[in-house]
Amino acid sequence: MTTPRDSLAAVAGQAASPAPAGLSTLTHLECTNCGERYDADALNTVCSACGRVLYARYDLEKARYTLTPESLSRRRWDMWRYQEVLPVRDPSRIISLGEGMTPLIPARRAGKAVGVDNLLLKDEGKNPTGSFKARGLGCAISRAAELGVEAIALPSAGNAASAASAYGAAAGLDVQVFMPRDVPETNRIECLQYGANITLVDGLINDAGAKVRELAPQHGWFDVSTLKEPYRQEGKKTMGYELAEQLGWTLPDVVIYPTGGGTGIVGMWKAFEEMEVLGLIGSARPKMIVVQAEGCAPIVRAYDNGERHAEVWQNAHTAAAGMRVPVAIGDYLILDAVRQSGGTALTVSEDEIRDAQIDLGRLAGIYAAPEGGATYAALKKLVARGAVSSDDLVVLFQTGMGIKYDPPIS
Amino acid sequence: MTTPRDSLAAVAGQAASPAPAGLSTLTHLECTNCGERYDADALNTVCSACGRVLYARYDLEKARYTLTPESLSRRRWDMWRYQEVLPVRDPSRIISLGEGMTPLIPARRAGKAVGVDNLLLKDEGKNPTGSFKARGLGCAISRAAELGVEAIALPSAGNAASAASAYGAAAGLDVQVFMPRDVPETNRIECLQYGANITLVDGLINDAGAKVRELAPQHGWFDVSTLKEPYRQEGKKTMGYELAEQLGWTLPDVVIYPTGGGTGIVGMWKAFEEMEVLGLIGSARPKMIVVQAEGCAPIVRAYDNGERHAEVWQNAHTAAAGMRVPVAIGDYLILDAVRQSGGTALTVSEDEIRDAQIDLGRLAGIYAAPEGGATYAALKKLVARGAVSSDDLVVLFQTGMGIKYDPPIS
Repeated sequence: MTTPRDSLAAVAGQAASPAPAGLSTLTHLECTNCGERYDADALNTVCSACGRVLYARYDLEKARYTLTPESLSRRRWDMWRYQEVLPVRDPSRIISLGEGMTPLIPARRAGKAVGVDNLLLKDEGKNPTGSFKARGLGCAISRAAELGVEAIALPSAGNAASAASAYGAAAGLDVQVFMPRDVPETNRIECLQYGANITLVDGLINDAGAKVRELAPQHGWFDVSTLKEPYRQEGKKTMGYELAEQLGWTLPDVVIYPTGGGTGIVGMWKAFEEMEVLGLIGSARPKMIVVQAEGCAPIVRAYDNGERHAEVWQNAHTAAAGMRVPVAIGDYLILDAVRQSGGTALTVSEDEIRDAQIDLGRLAGIYAAPEGGATYAALKKLVARGAVSSDDLVVLFQTGMGIKYDPPIS
Repeated sequence: MTTPRDSLAAVAGQAASPAPAGLSTLTHLECTNCGERYDADALNTVCSACGRVLYARYDLEKARYTLTPESLSRRRWDMWRYQEVLPVRDPSRIISLGEGMTPLIPARRAGKAVGVDNLLLKDEGKNPTGSFKARGLGCAISRAAELGVEAIALPSAGNAASAASAYGAAAGLDVQVFMPRDVPETNRIECLQYGANITLVDGLINDAGAKVRELAPQHGWFDVSTLKEPYRQEGKKTMGYELAEQLGWTLPDVVIYPTGGGTGIVGMWKAFEEMEVLGLIGSARPKMIVVQAEGCAPIVRAYDNGERHAEVWQNAHTAAAGMRVPVAIGDYLILDAVRQSGGTALTVSEDEIRDAQIDLGRLAGIYAAPEGGATYAALKKLVARGAVSSDDLVVLFQTGMGIKYDPPIS
């Protein structure tokens, strides 16, 4: 019997046509605020000069020779197909659970119901652990392990903890998660199955973050908080690459994104810039639209007030756990993307979120999480006020699976 | 701004390189027992002559011109890439939620722990509604709608009902699901979100099936019970096509499959036969290994007793809801595949299942359902008795997501 043992390495990431991706062209890290440069092969967190977010930078002039539509058509079917613009240097160090390449689902009945002809749902619930958080943590954990990290810690509103625990288990790392005491029960249960150490904290994700900052240095844990290390962001940006690739290297007219920490929108914006330099797309951009819950809307408030940084939101509350983020370190990056794209920022109520979740279930066959429901609720409002027209191609990000939350109907 | 409106049709099923698949080469239906032929463009159920299972048959000599490794590398990224050997004739009638092309994940730490160098997990939990049932029901519902059906009914141990409800909602069909009263709560909740009509039945899936047989004719519902119409099977068989494509058109040495109604194993076996005629693979086959729970093992008992049909299992019980199937209409097809492949059939206990679920979480970063745990528990036993050797390439089917069940640790 012919056995395909040699192909095992090739299927890491389920490559049907296992043409190898080009190697990472990572060159350095750069502060998004003051421009200070850092060595990308040392373990870095935020800018030591000004405390702001560091971005990974690549040799895009080199990458454009191998990262082409033609070569991509033959590569592995996960986010690591874009390896030239991802940070892991040794492909054998990639920890893959099948993250990325999530479906972009035409939702004709749901579109018609709100008067939009071309509505697509980017279903991030198909990722490992059921949310887009798998992209960022799959990337950050693979890179951290490559740089010698053996223990990680992070605060989480829920789904990031699940993803970190899964990738940490696959990598054989020690994982410490800190979550609000009232985190969705499913997230706590998931982390347990992956063998993570769980600490429940009184308060919200920023309070959990304070605990991590206090304890991580004492115990030698590497802090993989959102945008406090440079590589979660790099995993998230693959949503932007995929969107373009799935649309034949064009972009939609409108992207509606449920916004908590904001790495999704920030990551896609970075991806669009890189793709233009790579010659994969032109200069057109979608309108990037931030949706937040009425009970926690720091970015919407800053947008409305014309500010570049958002103040902490007091008494944050919403059923959309991933949007219950009272302060975002990347606030200025989110607001820049929204403004530069001609987008907007708006809030939706808890009732609107719930109704929209029900609509998506019945009209599209997608069991939306509250965050996903918020995008459809926002679309209804934007159509009503004429900000989205019937012939716009609209993409709603469904950032996670509905079944991990309390159901809208029970 | 360049808008990609024209590409909306192309992204049905998220085609990055939207080369169209060839059309279906469906020719007729054929009884697996008596060989009687039926018109594939009429609505059929089982053989009206002998009551056994009908198989869809294709013009494989025609299909082999277009269904090639080269053409496949450019097609949509879901199970509909194999359209020549699927039954929907008009591609615009495909109801797609992103089913299939699930990851085949190298599980090195979990393999090493049991002494197997090359262990792969086929993670079917990444399908819509979190289980492999999406393949069969996506296919059956798309085809039923194409043939004019407006209302469907089915009995289910849980996950099939969720999948039917989601695809029925996307298609705009009336969906009637009948489940045991003690079905996992998550499945009932999911069906509710998709707007299905739910009837809870005292007893097991076969009792629910009796209800469907009683009520469907009265109400004009089309019965999409497993193997009681010919097309669920066709969706399931795409697991076999994918396995070969993901392994570079070879097959593994061993496939361990958690067996309830058995359409997965039966479907893959049919796929292997078709692929050989298509020139995609040779005559080698994996050992097909059935695992069932000690509390419900009709196929294992029939295998051990050398029988071709299985008797109904009395007082079936196991936490693996998908394996709590006391009688399977395709019993002879399952047993034929196991015997012809040189495979075997074995049981595992509830404790073994639970321990294996915990192992997969901690060693592979996969939150296994009980059915998936059963495959790893079976692997441990097979290695211990020398039936699987350390250099075998082994694939364990993880048929659904763990979070839909009571957790192994809480």
